[in-house]
Amino acid sequence: MSPRQQPPVVVVVEPETPGNVGTIARAMKNFGLSDLKLVDPPELDPDGEAYGFAGHAREDVLPNAEEVTLDEIIDTYHTVGCTAITGEDSRRHVRFPFKTPVELRESLSTVDTRTALVFGREGRGLHNREIERLDEVCSIPASGEYPVLNLGQAATILFYELRELTVAETQLPDVDHYRAEERDIERLYDYFADFLDAQAYNERKTAKTRRLFRRLVGRAHPTDREVHTLLGVFRGATDRLDRSVARAKGDDVPTDTPEDRE
Amino acid sequence: MSPRQQPPVVVVVEPETPGNVGTIARAMKNFGLSDLKLVDPPELDPDGEAYGFAGHAREDVLPNAEEVTLDEIIDTYHTVGCTAITGEDSRRHVRFPFKTPVELRESLSTVDTRTALVFGREGRGLHNREIERLDEVCSIPASGEYPVLNLGQAATILFYELRELTVAETQLPDVDHYRAEERDIERLYDYFADFLDAQAYNERKTAKTRRLFRRLVGRAHPTDREVHTLLGVFRGATDRLDRSVARAKGDDVPTDTPEDRE
Repeated sequence: MSPRQQPPVVVVVEPETPGNVGTIARAMKNFGLSDLKLVDPPELDPDGEAYGFAGHAREDVLPNAEEVTLDEIIDTYHTVGCTAITGEDSRRHVRFPFKTPVELRESLSTVDTRTALVFGREGRGLHNREIERLDEVCSIPASGEYPVLNLGQAATILFYELRELTVAETQLPDVDHYRAEERDIERLYDYFADFLDAQAYNERKTAKTRRLFRRLVGRAHPTDREVHTLLGVFRGATDRLDRSVARAKGDDVPTDTPEDRE
Repeated sequence: MSPRQQPPVVVVVEPETPGNVGTIARAMKNFGLSDLKLVDPPELDPDGEAYGFAGHAREDVLPNAEEVTLDEIIDTYHTVGCTAITGEDSRRHVRFPFKTPVELRESLSTVDTRTALVFGREGRGLHNREIERLDEVCSIPASGEYPVLNLGQAATILFYELRELTVAETQLPDVDHYRAEERDIERLYDYFADFLDAQAYNERKTAKTRRLFRRLVGRAHPTDREVHTLLGVFRGATDRLDRSVARAKGDDVPTDTPEDRE
């Protein structure tokens, strides 16, 4: 999915501690968001915690944060209120129905709109009188015993979950795992069989042990580097075993030298 | 998926700031984890930031945290090192292959083992000489421009993503949305049609407008409460329109009273 032209804006209503604003700014930058709006924020001292917690977001997201009113946001954006506490069913429709972050991502990925993700104050979250004015409710599933996340952590999770809509390119390589060529993996199995032979492995067990090795290596999806290194390991051992057998028979075999192990 | 008997333990290597330890403890409790182990931690003063940031985890996760060595962890657990920076391909196999949090969850859900999620110090993360001793590498996909998350935020995302393995019951109702009975939704469409009739809506447009209403309501998955409230709204309007037509014809119709609107 390609990022939409208009990534969501982030609104924090009456944040109490500058540190949380900094944490949110950092997470925004980590996940490709840049537009932070604050309703009645504390003072954000450039030498204080907001800037201290913001990481590289101290260079852009945080200094560009804009002070707004909730009314302006509601007039301008499709608003999603984030809360740990939902209604139980449709009789309490201030906080029901709700979407989980995954459902929100799926829903937003189908529309072209400007969305505001609205977070409440640390202690109490968003009040009902605020949530009832917003378009949708989003809630992060967490432990029933203690579902209330810290404000900055909740925001971080939501931005993470929406990253497909906002991050054009992650830091990770496109493929997080390259399985070696099957031909090379088969060669590894052959070398392993030779290695069993060379050590005079119990013949009745050979087929079973080869199968076991194939299962272990196969499900680990070995990389090219892993296969080639192990090919070397088994071939080296097999050669050495073969020579020691030949020597025992009195054949003329060059003596091992330390270089052999290279 | 039901939670496994043995949830992962969480290991933080040389955390520098007590606040981050508190943040991690809180996120653990939010997502059903309880076993926190610290390698060479700072002092955790019960009146300091660790306890201040821990929320309810100050009651159990944090005071029960155990000081350990990385050697003990490696000897005892299946270890997963968490890092923002991976290798590019298998030539750099200290940090490659890696798993994303989703892949780690899928992989752990298939095995019965005791896993340790290992996080590094704030500034530099885990050193290569530490990661190379661990079993697997996990990395959170983030913005290529600024992929380095704060320690506490990275841990929070990983715990969130693994919640299916660790949280028996979330705070959310089992169903986050109940679509009303189709019979009632159909009734709403009928009432809407009556309402169009009652207002003498342009007949040529009626079918199209009814279809439009069905599409809008249908894809919003209306709840029972929503359908019944709207049924009342349209029926009330239709009744009132019918009466005003009858009155205009000179029929004997009772006058509107405020109670009619109830």
